[in-house]
Amino acid sequence: MTTSSDQQDSPASHDNDLQSALRRLSDTEQAARDRLFEFLKIESISTDPAYHHHCLEAAEWCAGQLRELGFESSVRPTEGKPMVVAHWRPEDGEAKPHVLFYGHYDVQPADPLEEWDTPPFEPRIAEHPTYGEVITARGASDDKGQVMTFIEACRAYIETSGSLPVAVTVLLEGEEESASPSLLPFLAETGDELKADIALVCDTNQWDGNTPAITAFLRGLAFSEVTITGPARDLHSGLYGGPVRNPIEVLCAMLGELHGPDGRITIPGFYDGVSEPSQEQRDEWNSLGFDEAGFLAEIGLVEAAGEDRYSLLEQLWARPTVEINGIYGGYTGVGTKTVIPSQATAKISFRLVPGQDPQQVITGFHQFIDQRLPRDARAHFTGEGGASAVGFDMASPEFQAAAQALQDEWDVPPVRLGCGASIPIVESFRNALGMDALLIGFALPDDRIHAPNEKYNLKSFVKGTRSWARILSAFANSPNEKTEDNKPANDA
Amino acid sequence: MTTSSDQQDSPASHDNDLQSALRRLSDTEQAARDRLFEFLKIESISTDPAYHHHCLEAAEWCAGQLRELGFESSVRPTEGKPMVVAHWRPEDGEAKPHVLFYGHYDVQPADPLEEWDTPPFEPRIAEHPTYGEVITARGASDDKGQVMTFIEACRAYIETSGSLPVAVTVLLEGEEESASPSLLPFLAETGDELKADIALVCDTNQWDGNTPAITAFLRGLAFSEVTITGPARDLHSGLYGGPVRNPIEVLCAMLGELHGPDGRITIPGFYDGVSEPSQEQRDEWNSLGFDEAGFLAEIGLVEAAGEDRYSLLEQLWARPTVEINGIYGGYTGVGTKTVIPSQATAKISFRLVPGQDPQQVITGFHQFIDQRLPRDARAHFTGEGGASAVGFDMASPEFQAAAQALQDEWDVPPVRLGCGASIPIVESFRNALGMDALLIGFALPDDRIHAPNEKYNLKSFVKGTRSWARILSAFANSPNEKTEDNKPANDA
Repeated sequence: MTTSSDQQDSPASHDNDLQSALRRLSDTEQAARDRLFEFLKIESISTDPAYHHHCLEAAEWCAGQLRELGFESSVRPTEGKPMVVAHWRPEDGEAKPHVLFYGHYDVQPADPLEEWDTPPFEPRIAEHPTYGEVITARGASDDKGQVMTFIEACRAYIETSGSLPVAVTVLLEGEEESASPSLLPFLAETGDELKADIALVCDTNQWDGNTPAITAFLRGLAFSEVTITGPARDLHSGLYGGPVRNPIEVLCAMLGELHGPDGRITIPGFYDGVSEPSQEQRDEWNSLGFDEAGFLAEIGLVEAAGEDRYSLLEQLWARPTVEINGIYGGYTGVGTKTVIPSQATAKISFRLVPGQDPQQVITGFHQFIDQRLPRDARAHFTGEGGASAVGFDMASPEFQAAAQALQDEWDVPPVRLGCGASIPIVESFRNALGMDALLIGFALPDDRIHAPNEKYNLKSFVKGTRSWARILSAFANSPNEKTEDNKPANDA
Repeated sequence: MTTSSDQQDSPASHDNDLQSALRRLSDTEQAARDRLFEFLKIESISTDPAYHHHCLEAAEWCAGQLRELGFESSVRPTEGKPMVVAHWRPEDGEAKPHVLFYGHYDVQPADPLEEWDTPPFEPRIAEHPTYGEVITARGASDDKGQVMTFIEACRAYIETSGSLPVAVTVLLEGEEESASPSLLPFLAETGDELKADIALVCDTNQWDGNTPAITAFLRGLAFSEVTITGPARDLHSGLYGGPVRNPIEVLCAMLGELHGPDGRITIPGFYDGVSEPSQEQRDEWNSLGFDEAGFLAEIGLVEAAGEDRYSLLEQLWARPTVEINGIYGGYTGVGTKTVIPSQATAKISFRLVPGQDPQQVITGFHQFIDQRLPRDARAHFTGEGGASAVGFDMASPEFQAAAQALQDEWDVPPVRLGCGASIPIVESFRNALGMDALLIGFALPDDRIHAPNEKYNLKSFVKGTRSWARILSAFANSPNEKTEDNKPANDA
């Protein structure tokens, strides 16, 4: 990125500004916490229409926070919940790196309410046996606490230096917990205004309470639903059983062969193009001291049942999978019904790694089924789709700058995590805006997101605000080339 | 059976009485049809509480018909629908064979109503392309038309000879279409009163429109429900997929191995004690000219998929089976949910042949599952039970007498059918009353019972009434030894 000759933009000046911002964050911890609590009190459950006005209230609250700081801030209507869009523009003519920060103001429903120790929308500080002070409330971790780490970093900067070290656009969604139906249309419509050098997505985990992380691998997804049809109608198993091949058994026999005895998937061409993580990456993961037994014990298991040749973390983060997500056929009510059903259906999905093409995987699955179809059975496929895996460029200046900033704050380098799940916003930014993302978050796997007694570590919140201040500063100092294209549009 | 010295009981007198009854049946065909239509108009749907009073009306109607003929006839309350019990007792001191006739006055629901060509409870005569005149109405075939074949035979006898050639008890149930919950308690309570030399069950098929049948083999039934549990809770397939073994796939892999490539069942000990039909019986079936291709085509299939070494009829009537009647696990709604479920469940049932013990079959199934359980998967079995197969004694005097009577009426010998399904009433009479049954019915496989546009061939109805007249007469002439025990109790 080009740096202006203005003394204000020199690395030394950046560092002074950062130190001022960090001091400010220390001095105003209680006020930041109070603001987060205000946000947490808003019952912005997006999936339940009864809470629609609370979602609007949350959007207005966020827009107001940013407006108060000097952002050009607005609440934009969509077909569903509105988007909050806010710009911090550099002074005229200044060419600064430009980041798009993404988070969401909506939360999951809180039920079952009776399982909460304290009311979900009355945030409070609780004492946690492992982590010390934690904030408990619905949305504390997912994603209001995370959103506020960034906004508080901006506040501290602006309140001390009167400015931000980079150009910032904030995009806050209100439908992340209800499948984001308005996101892609909004990105398509608003694209140029939102396009930045890089997106910062704050909706992921740290490694542990003392170790930050950048999520660097996301598995992709492909899915298909297969229905096997045998006889033309449901039949009485007494009057037809024997000569009639049962489509449930046909389906079972096929799906029982998805994995070989070594855990490898037997679908033709499934591993074509699969790229493995580097040895360095594998070594890093192996050195993490990950507690495989503990991970498995928490879900009632003792054995990692994936491919023989890979560690549990590799099976999870870097290897593709096939799952039967659902199966049904015949009588599924209480008791007995002696039916030979006409059909049986399974919902299948695949987790993909870089190098795999979702469409090719689905084609291979069709072949797998077709090769095994006995006479008098037909297969029908429906509900298919997918998205490729994402492997971030860990050598990019932004990645390197963010990694250093996180190390400065936490005194240990960030773990480069894989994530077994896809994160649709990453794909959306890539496809709609041609923009890469950095996934940096301060949640923990045991934050009980989507569950009763959701919590967010107070330390994560505090050090999260400080981490973002450092990351913004690092971006300003980073040697990346700022492109004119990606300045925020002046006309929002 | 002993025959009294009274001239009225001589074979010649029996034959005169029979000829009078048969003439009467010919002369009163229209009146018999009108009575059946009255019965068919009563909407005696047992499974729907909204039709309870119609069921009571049907029971009273039947009891009234029998009372009008001189039966000692009553409607007996149960916890559910009442039973109709009616006795025709021989004159004092006469020792006659005693038969218990069983049928049911309740019917299946009629929906989907829009698929009926004419209203289900407005019986009428329709022209059928194969069979000529047929009676269309809900219950025409199952079982009101069949019940009335017997009652009309009794009527013709009584109206011409003033008596019946044998002692008759009629038992009509009102819950046959809703699993007969009151039957066993009622039999237990009323047993001695109902016990006869043999039960006549009229709820089965002829071979074809011109050929009568006696159902001589009934497969038994055993059933079990198996649930495979893997992880302790449902898991996100992105965050856990790979190292976690999916219980749906575990279940599928097991159930896919139930049959070997030759169609034989692979459960340990499954064929222990299986008795094969005699060569004579197999020859009879092979000589029937059964249209395998037509049978399969009607259900959309081209290939009999059972055990290689058996014909389709043998697979259906004389070989044991295993079926997956239902399967479910994971997400079964619309669209995609990337879950690894904690559990998957299948409902399994077995059709048994003589020599198989239901409990041993279930034990073998447990072994089959347990042998295939991988680490971290558990199996739980529930909902188990069963009943042995039944092979009737075709050499018994009653069987022989009935077979001859049917041949006299239809001019061809009855086919000795197998029935792939169990008929619970047979087991109930055996267990509760120690009484064998003869299964003689005049329905056809294409009567559309339980479906819209149920029909009963008018010819089957007319010749059914005549068949029963002949069978009652034949029993009176049969050389069986009447036991005093099985006279109807005088005190009902």
